[in-house]
Amino acid sequence: MKQNILISNDDGINAKGLRALIEVASKFGNVTVVAPEVGMSGMSHAITMSTPLLLRKIKDTESIKVYACQGTPVDCVKIAMDYIMEEPPTLVLSGINHGANSNMSVIYSGTMGAAMEGSMYGIPSIGFSVLTHSPTADFTACKRIAETIIEKVISENKNPYLCLNVNVPTLPYDQIKGIRVCRQSMGCWLEDFVKQTNPRGQEYFWLTGSFHPNEVDAIDDDEAMLAQNFVSIVPVKTDMTDYAQLDEMKNWNL
Amino acid sequence: MKQNILISNDDGINAKGLRALIEVASKFGNVTVVAPEVGMSGMSHAITMSTPLLLRKIKDTESIKVYACQGTPVDCVKIAMDYIMEEPPTLVLSGINHGANSNMSVIYSGTMGAAMEGSMYGIPSIGFSVLTHSPTADFTACKRIAETIIEKVISENKNPYLCLNVNVPTLPYDQIKGIRVCRQSMGCWLEDFVKQTNPRGQEYFWLTGSFHPNEVDAIDDDEAMLAQNFVSIVPVKTDMTDYAQLDEMKNWNL
Repeated sequence: MKQNILISNDDGINAKGLRALIEVASKFGNVTVVAPEVGMSGMSHAITMSTPLLLRKIKDTESIKVYACQGTPVDCVKIAMDYIMEEPPTLVLSGINHGANSNMSVIYSGTMGAAMEGSMYGIPSIGFSVLTHSPTADFTACKRIAETIIEKVISENKNPYLCLNVNVPTLPYDQIKGIRVCRQSMGCWLEDFVKQTNPRGQEYFWLTGSFHPNEVDAIDDDEAMLAQNFVSIVPVKTDMTDYAQLDEMKNWNL
Repeated sequence: MKQNILISNDDGINAKGLRALIEVASKFGNVTVVAPEVGMSGMSHAITMSTPLLLRKIKDTESIKVYACQGTPVDCVKIAMDYIMEEPPTLVLSGINHGANSNMSVIYSGTMGAAMEGSMYGIPSIGFSVLTHSPTADFTACKRIAETIIEKVISENKNPYLCLNVNVPTLPYDQIKGIRVCRQSMGCWLEDFVKQTNPRGQEYFWLTGSFHPNEVDAIDDDEAMLAQNFVSIVPVKTDMTDYAQLDEMKNWNL
């Protein structure tokens, strides 16, 4: 079946990773792209409530439509779904992100915000990231892997709420060991704020941080897979309920 | 034990709900407040990566310290944890939010972004919301309920990663039926974009939406509890892995 694919990202309309994903998606059907005008890294699942959204049409042919939106990645998915697209998409893709979205980064990531939003509409969604922030990253291996995973989702998936977080090592294709479905690495991004002073004497802070895993020797999570040069796929769900804690709290006598 | 409490919110440093939460928290120990300078509703788990953060000290006594930060709710928690506070907090509170954060809104909410961030640091965290957006909302009932829940968390909880999403009906205290621990209502916020044209002829869009539940007759989720005038508490977890889907995908032969 020919697919009707919606693509967004968080690195913005001009990112090389977005062009790579459009190339791959075009093999499967028609493509609608709605991506942020500017970089929106770290925007998570943010939506724009207090300012209006501008939309700029860049390309409009039968097989590909491209828009830039002055909003967040989730705004882009919403305006595509509820305003631009005549038929709902059969698949939502996000990325390819410049930089990892493994571990807890899934929660901060605008790339994964867009993918999660697609799945909330009941459309299978996949977010792709490569493990380098370089704007000139080589997406050759990533494109082959994205194609394989999209094929599998089209042929095997039966879950309309599917959401996959795919991370790809920065390696040539033949050095990547394979693809592993696994759990999210748990831990915490701890910040080391860099303090500077502006010419008017005001102090300000840059957020810089590093990931501290809860289990340094985990063997079955995404960080472990990536460290062994596998592609990691974490299936993500948007029911945030902690059911074990829910059971525990029945004894709290609230 | 005297508590060391960190408070943030997403309605900003001047919100009435923040003042209400500070009043309640002060009964339990020392309080550090770091809240956004301006309203940050819908900012989810966003962090500020491309601009620096300004920090403004408003109050500094032994029992209460208050700062405003030009960042998101999650930025506020991070700068409090990693820069401002000498000792880690024993409890992180967020809110009281003006407006519901039940159902899928937990994912879009800046209030819950701040609470989730606290729990990711291994500090029990609670986000509070009242079901009206009114800036002059009456927090009398909310304050009594917040006090009860904080007491229970202090006396009963053993989970450092605890994160609770508390929503309170807009009712006088004696009309609230009780407190129920429950699961998150699943569904989708569908948007109805309002298109307008600015004086220069540019079209722009306002995001306005409504919640469409997947199950309209659910009896055990937060929407069902709130509809019956109960306070809802959903325990939230930050491991987003969909373990059922993970098992299913073992047969995909990737």
